[in-house]
Amino acid sequence: MRNRRVILTTRPTDIPQPEHFTLDECEVPDLGDGELLIRNRFLSVDPAQRGWALAEANYSTPVALGTAMRALAVGEVIASRDPEFRVGQHLYGWFDWQAYCICRADAVLRRVDRSAVPLSANASLLGINGLAAFIGLTRFGRPEPGEWVLVSTAAGSVGSFVGQFAHRLGARPVGLTSSRAKAKRCLERYAYEHVALYNEAGWAEELGQFAPEGMNVFFDSAGGEILDAGIRHMARHGRVVQCGTASIQAWSPPPQGPRHEREVLARRLQWGGFVIFDHVREFETAARTLIDWHHRGDLVIDEDISIGLETAPDSIAGLYRGENLGKRLIQLD
Amino acid sequence: MRNRRVILTTRPTDIPQPEHFTLDECEVPDLGDGELLIRNRFLSVDPAQRGWALAEANYSTPVALGTAMRALAVGEVIASRDPEFRVGQHLYGWFDWQAYCICRADAVLRRVDRSAVPLSANASLLGINGLAAFIGLTRFGRPEPGEWVLVSTAAGSVGSFVGQFAHRLGARPVGLTSSRAKAKRCLERYAYEHVALYNEAGWAEELGQFAPEGMNVFFDSAGGEILDAGIRHMARHGRVVQCGTASIQAWSPPPQGPRHEREVLARRLQWGGFVIFDHVREFETAARTLIDWHHRGDLVIDEDISIGLETAPDSIAGLYRGENLGKRLIQLD
Repeated sequence: MRNRRVILTTRPTDIPQPEHFTLDECEVPDLGDGELLIRNRFLSVDPAQRGWALAEANYSTPVALGTAMRALAVGEVIASRDPEFRVGQHLYGWFDWQAYCICRADAVLRRVDRSAVPLSANASLLGINGLAAFIGLTRFGRPEPGEWVLVSTAAGSVGSFVGQFAHRLGARPVGLTSSRAKAKRCLERYAYEHVALYNEAGWAEELGQFAPEGMNVFFDSAGGEILDAGIRHMARHGRVVQCGTASIQAWSPPPQGPRHEREVLARRLQWGGFVIFDHVREFETAARTLIDWHHRGDLVIDEDISIGLETAPDSIAGLYRGENLGKRLIQLD
Repeated sequence: MRNRRVILTTRPTDIPQPEHFTLDECEVPDLGDGELLIRNRFLSVDPAQRGWALAEANYSTPVALGTAMRALAVGEVIASRDPEFRVGQHLYGWFDWQAYCICRADAVLRRVDRSAVPLSANASLLGINGLAAFIGLTRFGRPEPGEWVLVSTAAGSVGSFVGQFAHRLGARPVGLTSSRAKAKRCLERYAYEHVALYNEAGWAEELGQFAPEGMNVFFDSAGGEILDAGIRHMARHGRVVQCGTASIQAWSPPPQGPRHEREVLARRLQWGGFVIFDHVREFETAARTLIDWHHRGDLVIDEDISIGLETAPDSIAGLYRGENLGKRLIQLD
């Protein structure tokens, strides 16, 4: 059986572009003991893949050149030499940008219940995006009913859920995004009460108008000047959930910014670093709540699905161009 | 009856110096209903008084010009029109730099048990210094046995206790201080395992030698470059307790420094602002533990006691010159 893969062939220094990847074809080897053969159905495209492709170790080891690009995916078990998994079962895990994946149990993040949500939603609502929104918000942000929740990248694959989950918990989400079209989606589809456009003048002052008493939670995936402004609009005892630093292009030499220690102290902030992969053991419990919310019928799950492995090499760059509306996935047949 | 007071007469722009204060004398007025008359015995001198004297509101309102300098003190009730307090009782609270204080119950932070510790220790071990060390360390830092606890201003009135408390909890304190004499005290008296001198070249690299696996807790009262270096030596899931920002002279214009959001994220830090006055309701419980530790006989309580109100005007400046060895107090007769 032939496998088709998207290989990382040259190392990017910033956002991975099509020229860093090559599509190749190779034979699928025989399964060893304890191995699974997975047929991928939906490949995930995530901003974090930029970091995985870079040479500098961030909070994961870099993808080795000449191997399939590291990616999450939803796939079906088509052969199994691990008694814990059976043929026909669907899984979500580290199956990479390829048609078939041979892996072991440690690559599996979640077992998919096909009756719970549409298959693709296992890589969006029940994937790291929805799970990061839920676990980050409830474990780190801990909004009380009536509290303000500021969310950077509000229209993104995580932010679109943070707004909805905050609203469902009785809190009041305020979003930051980059365009009027995205702002409209935030207000109409993702339950945001207010949205500011961070590339227009005066946006930071708007935060003070939306919530004069200050923000109680800041779910930030941007860093940089967006973080700076958010921190200066926090209420006392506010919680800052650092879920990403997407706005910062390079960390060497270390970029400078205004010092925040006085804000942390005077506002009594709790500023925490949140990496979803530290919380894999909480996925099942979180997913059960999200499935329940989904069945009540009022969650919007926006997905931006392209067809075929050929769309993969430009897909991370596309995320950073801000062109997707919803969680970006690649469907394979 | 005549009162003697140290009045703030001109507003400092940085560290209060003798010229900002005037000693005056005035009549003690009659007590109103619900008021107490306190005779001060030990006045506290604290780095936080700099902030209280400045015009710019920090996390407390500025001391009004023409009034006694805000200060904590230990005093004796010599008249009471509040049935909750009796003559002869000793109290710790907001009694200011003066011989006598008229106040209400809301100025009282703790009732003193004269049999528990020497009277002065109610303004050191059982004052905000020891209580900040204990509550900040146990509630925010939460060191596990064997973990590394980095402490800036390790020989100071808070740091001298953080080292001892960390050691008592089975953790391993590492101190930062400014002179070899203070380093010696940290190692010999305050239970520090290692001490680095932050004004000598290469001190930041020493942190990596002391604890190659990284610091688990950073109890920081300095901010600035000391904070920057500490953050870059934290272990994963480390807790940064921001208890002060003494190394930063001015916040306007906002000083710049290296961005920390990537460190917060990649190291999964929890960076929290800690202000001891948020925790007044925990004082009694904390004090009981500290009294118990004291009675077991192995706590060092270093106090630097000067005699008479006349020593007050230069005493804050003296703290910032780093001349005190132990908690600075002023004894009145």
